[in-house]
Amino acid sequence: MDYERPLFFRVMQYANAAERDVVDMVSGNPDWAPPEALREGLREYADLSVEHYQYPPSEGLDELRAAIAAEHDVPTGSVLVTNGAGEANHLGMAVGLDEFPGSEVLLTDPVYPYYAGRAELLRADARYVAADEQGRLDPADVRRAASEDTAVIVANSPNNPTGAVYERETMRSLVDVAEANDALLVSDEVYSRFDHSGRFASALAFDSDHRFVTNAFSKSMAITGLRVGYAVVPEQLRPAVRTRHMLTNVACSRPAQYAVLRALRETPPEYYRANRELVADRIGTFTAALDAAGADYVTPEGAFYVLARFDGYPGTLANVERLIDEAGVAGMPGDAFGESRTDWLRFALVTPRVETAAERLTEFFA
Amino acid sequence: MDYERPLFFRVMQYANAAERDVVDMVSGNPDWAPPEALREGLREYADLSVEHYQYPPSEGLDELRAAIAAEHDVPTGSVLVTNGAGEANHLGMAVGLDEFPGSEVLLTDPVYPYYAGRAELLRADARYVAADEQGRLDPADVRRAASEDTAVIVANSPNNPTGAVYERETMRSLVDVAEANDALLVSDEVYSRFDHSGRFASALAFDSDHRFVTNAFSKSMAITGLRVGYAVVPEQLRPAVRTRHMLTNVACSRPAQYAVLRALRETPPEYYRANRELVADRIGTFTAALDAAGADYVTPEGAFYVLARFDGYPGTLANVERLIDEAGVAGMPGDAFGESRTDWLRFALVTPRVETAAERLTEFFA
Repeated sequence: MDYERPLFFRVMQYANAAERDVVDMVSGNPDWAPPEALREGLREYADLSVEHYQYPPSEGLDELRAAIAAEHDVPTGSVLVTNGAGEANHLGMAVGLDEFPGSEVLLTDPVYPYYAGRAELLRADARYVAADEQGRLDPADVRRAASEDTAVIVANSPNNPTGAVYERETMRSLVDVAEANDALLVSDEVYSRFDHSGRFASALAFDSDHRFVTNAFSKSMAITGLRVGYAVVPEQLRPAVRTRHMLTNVACSRPAQYAVLRALRETPPEYYRANRELVADRIGTFTAALDAAGADYVTPEGAFYVLARFDGYPGTLANVERLIDEAGVAGMPGDAFGESRTDWLRFALVTPRVETAAERLTEFFA
Repeated sequence: MDYERPLFFRVMQYANAAERDVVDMVSGNPDWAPPEALREGLREYADLSVEHYQYPPSEGLDELRAAIAAEHDVPTGSVLVTNGAGEANHLGMAVGLDEFPGSEVLLTDPVYPYYAGRAELLRADARYVAADEQGRLDPADVRRAASEDTAVIVANSPNNPTGAVYERETMRSLVDVAEANDALLVSDEVYSRFDHSGRFASALAFDSDHRFVTNAFSKSMAITGLRVGYAVVPEQLRPAVRTRHMLTNVACSRPAQYAVLRALRETPPEYYRANRELVADRIGTFTAALDAAGADYVTPEGAFYVLARFDGYPGTLANVERLIDEAGVAGMPGDAFGESRTDWLRFALVTPRVETAAERLTEFFA
C-alpha cells in the first residue's frame, strides 16, 4: 500500500505544473466561503484566557457535543468529536473490526479510496458489492455478500464519487444486514447538507447498536482544513472508541472546535441552502454541456461530483493528463474509485468556472 | 484496557467537586501564556481567503515543516506535522512494530501511562526496564532487556514523571541498542524546552535510520489544546508513516499550524527562557517545602513535575483524594506510572500557587 502520494495529489500537481490555464475539478475542496460566524469564532478564541489554550476534553468540547447531539436528536454522550470525518471513519472501521466477530469489511464498488486504504491498514479482508451505473446500491446484494465473516459494512450517502443518495429503505436494510450478521454499519454522511434529491435518510433514523454514523463540518461549512468531524457511537462501543481516540490523538484542536461551535449556533439555514443551490446550478450547467458533448454521465442526487464517460476516452491517468494539457480541464481518473469505473472521469464542481470547463470539454470531444 | 476515564480526569473531577479550595497540580497543562505571536497568527488566519480554509498538505504546511527542520538541522522531507506529540508517538510505535522484526516494546518503569496504553492498543508485548530512584536509566539495562523480539524502544527525556534528563551518552547508547537489535528508538522530547540541567541531548544528535524523534509545541508554547506536534522520520519509514497519518487523520488542523508557524518565527528566546525559569523557581519553592515536611523527593533535572514520597502515606488514589479533602492539594497517584512508584505522588508545577501548596503539605504532614 502506498498512499504517500495519493492520486489526488499527483493529478493536482500535474495540473499546477501545466503551462496552460487549467480548471481544477480534482479534489473535494469547496471554493465557497465558510460562515462568517466561523471567522468570528476564531477571532474570539484568539482573545481568550490562557486555560482555553489547554487540552479540551478528549471527547470534544462539551457545548459542541451538545450542539451536535441536539441537531441529530441523539444523547450528548453518544457524540465524539474527531479530527474530521476521516478520523471518525477510521475509528468506526477499527473498532468494528475489534469488537465484532469476523475480519471482513464490505465496501461498495465504486469506492472512496480511503475506505479501501483503511481496510488494508487494519489488515481486514475487503469485499466489494457493486453499485449499478447510477451508483444505486441494492440492499439484497449487500445481504447476499454479508456473512459471519463480516465485521464492518461501510456506506456513504450522498455518495462520493457517484452522487447517489441511498433511500430510506436502503439505509434501513443496511442497518438490518449489520444486525443480522453481528456487524457494524459505518455510515459516512459527510455530504448530508448536499442532498439535491430531498430523499436523504441518515442511518440515525434507525435506532440500533449496530450503526456508527460519521459526519463533519468540512463540506457543510467549507472548512476541510479545520478538521472538525464527529461520530455518533452506540453505547457498548464508547469505551473502545474513546480509548482508541485518546491513544491516537489525545484530543482535537481547540480553536477549530470553538469556531465551529460559534458557527453552528449562528449560521442561518440560508447559508447551507445557498451553497446547495450553487452546487445544483453547477450540476445543471455541467451536465448540459456533457449532453452537448455527447457524453454519458450520472446526474448526482447529492454531493458535488459528476462521473462522466466519453466514448473511446477511458478514465486513465494518462487520459486525465492529456485532458489537462489539451483541454485545460483537470478531473480524477475513474479507476481511482475501483475497477467498475475505469471508463469514467470524476469532475468536482468546486470551481466558479464550471461553465468554462464544460465549454472546453464540449470543444475537445467535438 | 479502559482509558475511557483516565486517572487524570478522575482526579481532576474529584478535585473540582471538592468543597474546599484545592491547588490543582494534577495535569501537565501549563498555566503561563502562549506567545503573543500565536494569538496574532490566529487573528491573521481568521481574515485569510477561502482557500486557506481547505485541506493543508497531509504532512503539514510546507513553511511550518521547513521552520521545524531548520530548528533541528534536519531535512524538511523528514518532518511530519502531527496532531500533537500524542499522534507522533502513536505513529512511531505503530510503524516501528509494523516495519521492524519482533513484537515487543521496551518501556521504562516508571512509565508515562499513554505509552503503555499504546503498546496494548497495538497488541505489542510491553517489557519494562527499571529506572533508578532518581529516574536515571542505565543503558546497560536496556541493552540486556533488548533482543530480537524488540521492535520499539520508547524513551522520554526530559522525563515525565521523574524529571530525569538522559545524558548524551545514554541517548547514544539507546540509538546503538536500537540499531544492534534492528529496532526503532522512539524518543519523546516534548519537554526539551524545560531542561534545567543544561545536559539535554536530543536523539537527533545521532544520525541513524533507527531513531524516530517526536516533539510538540504543546509545552514549549503552552498550547496543549492546539494539537501541533511533529515527528522527525527516517527516510525508509516515511511512506509507511505518511500512509498511516493520512488514513487516520488525513491532515492536521490548519489554523493551529498557521498560528504556530507565526509564533515560531516571531517568538524571542526570552519567552522560552522566562517560562523555564518560572518552572525552576517553582521547583525551588516546592522542594524546600518538601524538605521542611520531611518528605523524600526527586529534584527534577527537566520538565515540570516533582515526585515526592511521604512516610507512611503511599501514592494510592485513596490517599490522593484524602490529600485533596484534608490538605487542599491535588496531585497524581504514583501508581499511575507503574509499580515502582506506588509509594510516590506526582505534583505538576503548573500553578502560581506552588507556595500555598507547599505550605499546606508541610502543615498536613507535620
